[in-house]
Parts: sequence; C-alpha cells; structure tokens
Amino acid sequence: MLSTIYEPIQEDLVKVEDRLRSVGEVDFPWLSKLLDYSLGDGGKRIRPALVLLSGKFYNYDLSYLLPMATSVEVLHTATLVHDDAIDNSLVRRGHPTINKVWGEDKAILLGDYLLAKSEELVADTQNLRVIKLFAQTIMAISSGELNQAFSAFNLEQTRQQYLQRISGKTACLLCLATESGAILSQAPGKSVEALKGYGYNLGIAFQIADDILDFVGTEAEMGKPVGSDLAQGTLTLPAILLLERYPEDNPVRRLFQNEDKQKNIELALELVRNSSIIQECYAVASDYCARACQNLNLLPDNASRRSLIKLADYVVSRRK
Amino acid sequence: MLSTIYEPIQEDLVKVEDRLRSVGEVDFPWLSKLLDYSLGDGGKRIRPALVLLSGKFYNYDLSYLLPMATSVEVLHTATLVHDDAIDNSLVRRGHPTINKVWGEDKAILLGDYLLAKSEELVADTQNLRVIKLFAQTIMAISSGELNQAFSAFNLEQTRQQYLQRISGKTACLLCLATESGAILSQAPGKSVEALKGYGYNLGIAFQIADDILDFVGTEAEMGKPVGSDLAQGTLTLPAILLLERYPEDNPVRRLFQNEDKQKNIELALELVRNSSIIQECYAVASDYCARACQNLNLLPDNASRRSLIKLADYVVSRRK
Repeated sequence: MLSTIYEPIQEDLVKVEDRLRSVGEVDFPWLSKLLDYSLGDGGKRIRPALVLLSGKFYNYDLSYLLPMATSVEVLHTATLVHDDAIDNSLVRRGHPTINKVWGEDKAILLGDYLLAKSEELVADTQNLRVIKLFAQTIMAISSGELNQAFSAFNLEQTRQQYLQRISGKTACLLCLATESGAILSQAPGKSVEALKGYGYNLGIAFQIADDILDFVGTEAEMGKPVGSDLAQGTLTLPAILLLERYPEDNPVRRLFQNEDKQKNIELALELVRNSSIIQECYAVASDYCARACQNLNLLPDNASRRSLIKLADYVVSRRK
Repeated sequence: MLSTIYEPIQEDLVKVEDRLRSVGEVDFPWLSKLLDYSLGDGGKRIRPALVLLSGKFYNYDLSYLLPMATSVEVLHTATLVHDDAIDNSLVRRGHPTINKVWGEDKAILLGDYLLAKSEELVADTQNLRVIKLFAQTIMAISSGELNQAFSAFNLEQTRQQYLQRISGKTACLLCLATESGAILSQAPGKSVEALKGYGYNLGIAFQIADDILDFVGTEAEMGKPVGSDLAQGTLTLPAILLLERYPEDNPVRRLFQNEDKQKNIELALELVRNSSIIQECYAVASDYCARACQNLNLLPDNASRRSLIKLADYVVSRRK
C-alpha cells in the first residue's frame, strides 16, 4: 500500500536509506552499533516521504531535499529513543528498545547524538529559514511532551487540550516535513502555506489513528503492548470520550486513581471497543484528513499530489 | 577574581544574562519554571565569556556574538541537565537537580528543549559554518559521554583514553566557544586556529582541574558530593595515577569490582590526598594551560588577550 503511494519518489527514498545507513559509519564502534540498531529497523519512513513528495511541485533539488528528508527521520528516531527511555518502554517495532538492551543512560545520550546529527544534516540545506524552523520544531515537540508529562494521570483534560498536545507531539514534525520540502523547492508563499496546512492536519489525523490503535490494535500488529497510553497515564481521544460518556463510574478514573491498574486497563479497552467511540474517533481523524487534502487543491495536479491524497487515506486506515 | 577577568566584556555579559532570562519567557508555565530554575542559578558563565573575549580581536559585532554567547550557555545547561539525569545526581551548584525535584522524565525533555533552544539561538548568527560546527560539537559531546558510559567501571583505561574522553566531554565545548567567537568576528584563518587551540587546551586543563576537585574539594565548595566520579565508575586522571602506583591492591580496583563502595571511595580519596598525585595532576593541567596561552601569542595584545591568559590561571586555581 505505502509502496504505491511512495511511487513518485521511490528511487530517492532508497537514497535516504543509504544516507541513514551512513549515519552509522562512525569511528566509535558502540555508537555505530546503536545508530544502526535505532535507524535501521524499518520504520514507515513517512516523514522523509513527505519532504520529497512536498518538494515535487516546483524545483525538486535533491542536493537540499535529500539531507532534509534524512534529517527529519533522524530527528523522529531521536524522539522515539527518548520517549522509550521516558516511558520505560521495552518493545518498539517488535524489537527490544535501546533503553531495554543498553540502559536508560545510553538511550539519553544516543537520543542527544541523533538530535545533533539531525541538526547537522539540516545545516546541509544551507537554508537559514529551514534551519531555524527545524530548531523551533524540536522545541515544540519537547514542550508538547513536557506538557504531556505534567498532565499525566490528570483526569481534567479537554479535547482541546488533547489536540494541543498532539499538535506539539506529532503534527509539528509532519508539518516541518511538508513545509521544509516546499521551502527547499522554492515553492511560492501560498503553496508553502498549503503544504504546511496539509502536514499539520495529516499529523493530527495520524496521531488520533495512533491513539485509536492503542485501544483496538494487537501487540503483533503494532510491535508494542496494547493500552500503553493508559498505562502511562496519557489521556487520548478514546479515553476522553469514554470519560465524557461515563463521568462517574469509569475504569479510566479508577486507573488514574491508582486502583488495580491491569484490570482497569482491560476494562477500559473492552468498554471502548464495544462502543461507538472508535467510530467517533475515526470520524474526527477523517475530518482532519479532509482538511489536509483541501489544502492540496491549490497545488498543481501531479503524481505527488495524488500520493499525498492517498497518504491521507492510508494514515487513518493503517493497522500499525 | 572572575569579575576582573571578565572586565573587558562585563557589560555584554549582563546582556547575555538578560537573554538567558528571556529564554524562560514561554507560554507554558511549567516549562517556564524549569527553564528559570536551570538557567538562572548562576554558573560561572565561562563559555559565554569565552565567546565574547574571543570576539574582541577583530570585528566585535554583538548582533552575532550575543546569540552565540547565549547559545553556548544554553547548550552547556542542556548537557548538565541530561548528565544529572544519567548519573542520578541529586545536587548541582548547591541546589537539588531537575531530576531530583521533577523526575527523570522531565529532565530528559527539558534537556531536549534546551538543546533545541541553543540551536535556535545559533541560527541567529546566520553563519552556516558556525551552525554546522555547533551541531558537530553536540555530536562530539554526546559520543564522548557515551564513550564514558560504555567504559564505566572498566579498569583498563590509559591516560590517552582519558584525554580523548575529556576532549569530547568538555574541551569540545570550550573550543566551540572560542572558535565561534573568532569566526563571528571575522578573524583571519590563523587567528581562528589560534583561538580554537586556546579553547581546546583550556578545556582539557579545566576538566583535569574539575576531576582533581572531585578528590580534594569539599561538598560545600563544589555544591555536590566529593568522590562522585568514582561512585559513577568514571576513571579520571587522579584515579588512573593511583592505579599506576598501586597496580595490585588498590581501593579503586576493589570499588570497581563492587566491593564495599563507600569505604573504598573514602580510602581512594585519602590515598590520593596524601600522595603527590594531586601535584602531578596539577602539573599536567598547568601544562595544558601553558599550551593554551602559547596559542595567544599570535593575537593582538589587548585587554581580552590579557583576560584569556588570566582565565587559564584561574581555571587551575579555582576551588569550585
């Protein structure tokens, strides 16, 4: 499915993989091992694909787009490595996490290295606007995550706060991918705005879908345990809707008040699965996808535009 | 003492303090609190001072030097916040650490935010060479720290490996400060190299002095417990010399083999204090200071050059 969507940029994504591999070519053998392990395990590469697809409308210049595409994936990996250390997660994409295998200290330092590497790559775009945007995006991501950490196990969270949180946590980075692809291909201002809007709305839809999968997915599909968000005290859209429906007696409420964790997670998962909440969440996600695609109307109709439209569908229909 | 050294740039260091304060002016109250706490507690500000003093030989332009000076201090703070989380340190500069007060997860995220903020500030220099150098320095710092983490509790470490480690861990950043100050003031190539050489050698001396203080300082002076390096399994120059002197029966060896930790730390401190090892370490540090100052011969003789020479003396004579 993704391979069809990536078709217009397939060859260049191979070059991104080569660049990612070369990130691991460093003198210090332990670092090299950690880099290969974290960068090589086949993520969906949606972020680099977004950079490249967004660069296809005007001046598609790989000398800038390739370091940018590599950079967003390295940054994404950095955030995953730190997230896993923070959440003490043991499995990611079906493999033991860095913190599980090498310890939390190594995960922190590897994440720092990856953050810096992503900045070094972005410097190769030679574009000061993109360089600054990149740093500001990392600021938004980490303050979004801090926001989440400070609101963990807090039941008083509105949909609005949830959207703000996932905007910082996820949408920001997808938005950076599309906006930088546009800027680096010398897109006119309105097209930059359109691609930025696409990336932002796609990112919100992407995260809502992720949060749904944490309720309805299977561990085999996702490569990580189901119900992780609730276990971390993170209130996502399905949980917020469940709380709205049953404001008094609710397993999420009991769980957040530290009562019988595992039992209440299972109860919450069951209640959500057997209700129309999932459908409702998908409707919200689809709405963001529609908004994402509306932004594309302004752009020339080409294979990349069709791919971006298909990608919006994919994002809410995926099972992992 | 430091105030005399900083005299030529005193007014501009006040501006750096203002900029550091404004880093904390963000919408999200928790983040603001954490930023004020970590940036405001009065470090020695050696790194920003190095940027400004190094900028004083040619075209001293604050519009570039000020964001750079602020940036290196923000980066330094980021590394401290992450180091404390990694080492599970409870006290820094006489105050409880971020990880102690708010938890390790917040410390990781705050460090990430600070890393990104430092990158945003460095983008304001509008100098691509400096921007790239900055990212590469963070890569060197984190791979130096990773190297340290992977060699923890390993007794087979040479002086050479120690120097390589502290070069990545500390000298890199001081070197970045002087080199970027030179570049941003449009110093000619040879002067850039000279100031870079000064910063690097000063950094080595600085770290050796730090490592000595961990043996001979007091908790009151340093604002953190004595013997922390040994407790973390980090082999510094005094410990390496002690192992060279007593290769067989040695408290460091016993400590690293996990025998009676506290007792062996105290024994090691006592043995080192009552030997000529400290003197020997200071001789090594002084040698690096002399090398640092030799680099300055090439530069115009002005108040800043005199300050840099005095700073080299300060670095090995300080008690905290």
